[in-house]
Amino acid sequence: MSIDTSTFPVSITDIRRAAKYLAPVTPLLESPYLNDIAGRRVLIKAEVLQRTGSFKFRGAWTAISALDDTIRARGVIAYSSGNHAQGIAHAASLFGVPSIIVMPADSPALKLANTQALGASVVTYDRAGGESREAVGEALAAERGLTLIRPYDEPMVIAGQGTVGLEIAEQAAAVGVSEADVLVCCGGGGLTSGVAIALHSVAPGLRVRPVEPTAADDTCRSLLAGKRLANEGNPNSFCDAIVTPIPGELTFPVLQQLAGPGLTVDDRAVLVAMGQALMRLKLVVEPGGAVALAAALDPTNVEGDAVICVVTGGNVDPQLISAAAATFVP
Amino acid sequence: MSIDTSTFPVSITDIRRAAKYLAPVTPLLESPYLNDIAGRRVLIKAEVLQRTGSFKFRGAWTAISALDDTIRARGVIAYSSGNHAQGIAHAASLFGVPSIIVMPADSPALKLANTQALGASVVTYDRAGGESREAVGEALAAERGLTLIRPYDEPMVIAGQGTVGLEIAEQAAAVGVSEADVLVCCGGGGLTSGVAIALHSVAPGLRVRPVEPTAADDTCRSLLAGKRLANEGNPNSFCDAIVTPIPGELTFPVLQQLAGPGLTVDDRAVLVAMGQALMRLKLVVEPGGAVALAAALDPTNVEGDAVICVVTGGNVDPQLISAAAATFVP
Repeated sequence: MSIDTSTFPVSITDIRRAAKYLAPVTPLLESPYLNDIAGRRVLIKAEVLQRTGSFKFRGAWTAISALDDTIRARGVIAYSSGNHAQGIAHAASLFGVPSIIVMPADSPALKLANTQALGASVVTYDRAGGESREAVGEALAAERGLTLIRPYDEPMVIAGQGTVGLEIAEQAAAVGVSEADVLVCCGGGGLTSGVAIALHSVAPGLRVRPVEPTAADDTCRSLLAGKRLANEGNPNSFCDAIVTPIPGELTFPVLQQLAGPGLTVDDRAVLVAMGQALMRLKLVVEPGGAVALAAALDPTNVEGDAVICVVTGGNVDPQLISAAAATFVP
Repeated sequence: MSIDTSTFPVSITDIRRAAKYLAPVTPLLESPYLNDIAGRRVLIKAEVLQRTGSFKFRGAWTAISALDDTIRARGVIAYSSGNHAQGIAHAASLFGVPSIIVMPADSPALKLANTQALGASVVTYDRAGGESREAVGEALAAERGLTLIRPYDEPMVIAGQGTVGLEIAEQAAAVGVSEADVLVCCGGGGLTSGVAIALHSVAPGLRVRPVEPTAADDTCRSLLAGKRLANEGNPNSFCDAIVTPIPGELTFPVLQQLAGPGLTVDDRAVLVAMGQALMRLKLVVEPGGAVALAAALDPTNVEGDAVICVVTGGNVDPQLISAAAATFVP
């Protein structure tokens, strides 16, 4: 099958340009204990160590850096109560420009406080009262000339997330791995498609496969069906960071051409993987950030001598850390 | 004061040689939240991400690599129930040579299991019944021709730990820090003295300061007294990994010449620092590994625009992770 990369929302050149100005590089970790469980080498890209605790900083920083100076100076706006919000807030602060984050009024207090502490102005809307974040956000954006930065259907965000792929290619080669499945936690597909574009160009022996919670497997089903299918109703999974309604418009066509079959994991396996991450990798990983690790630890999911997975975020409350630690059995 | 580096147990050349063959480099992290608490930039060297979960792998690997091939092939032996044991076990495995670890029979099951899982043969002795680990170990070593590797009073171990200092110098310079106190969790002083020798040579604006639990402050008191003073009785601190009887014979003279004043922290501050590490750095840190971070977070302990600290190990049980998480207040 011939692949026409000119149809992709971003090119490898965009990703390389993003990488050039982005720091820091996160480590690719390996644990003999996890290798034993998986029956093969497991290389773990530790995006929880990225600024603001998730890979989202990469896309946020890249998108803001790509704006024209005059436009950027007016500020940016995002709708998010999670990692994208924190990434945008911190990246905007580093550029010295204002950011407004539109969040539901009933968001957890820690998320509101974190987003403000990182320098954003938080504007809340009343979800229960029928206010729409779009209405609130568009009025603000028009009034102040703010640029909206979407969480995944945004070319420069995809380019930024793709830098994870460039780093994986180099770091995996350095430890002797050039043929493996690369399991990526998949919500809207910004990270998964960015990594896929990067690896297609620089490490074709590394194949991206999206991983989702069983209850929110829209990308897995869409890949099988050959078209974008939505999740039905309100998916019941604690992997909230990657529960999205439907694969992205820009991201899904990339996955159709470049990604291998998707994988799903249930919430219990995710909690156990979070416990292994705490005890064996010394990393705090949130549920949505642990699905790819959970998939990698099941020996039946992949073939070959090695598997690579991305742990994408670590923004989780203390109670859930305790629950994950309690699952640990040596 | 003129410093005669020829009196040191190892030279910068030894440390550079160790660094050349040692992987991986651990990241130097920074969090805007922790900077706010400390009132200055806090750069955190994440040794919990080192192989086996602590910096001890560096010294173990370096000491084993420095052995003559024939000697090494016979195997190595260590007395330890903690991180040094795991470092030796894993390093010996990577060299394909046998290792024996002498541990108390009443060691926690997880520590016994981990040491064995990493490839060591564990020999236990009956602490309560009056058996001495030295008697058990020396008999085995003589019988099998094993080389004993001490945890800190061992030049090649100090050289290996010193590689942490080389990395800090380079990584701190990359983020614009060349003048700062470098706070190091201090037990026998192997890491602290190795880092001090490295920084003295490559980054003289970075000054090492040992940090200890208040209840086991032998190095702090010894530095003030100008001679090696022991801890009295059985120090009561949960920072078990760094509760040692007295500063090392080889390490203390280095600290006398190169280190700034020591700092102490109480156990409560250590638990709170562990909670901050979980929530803000996404890292699991054990008590003995968190004392330097605890000291760095107290604005009154140091001066200047930046402070560097090493989080040295993350081998801790699930209950203590929960206790640390529960201390977190945003």
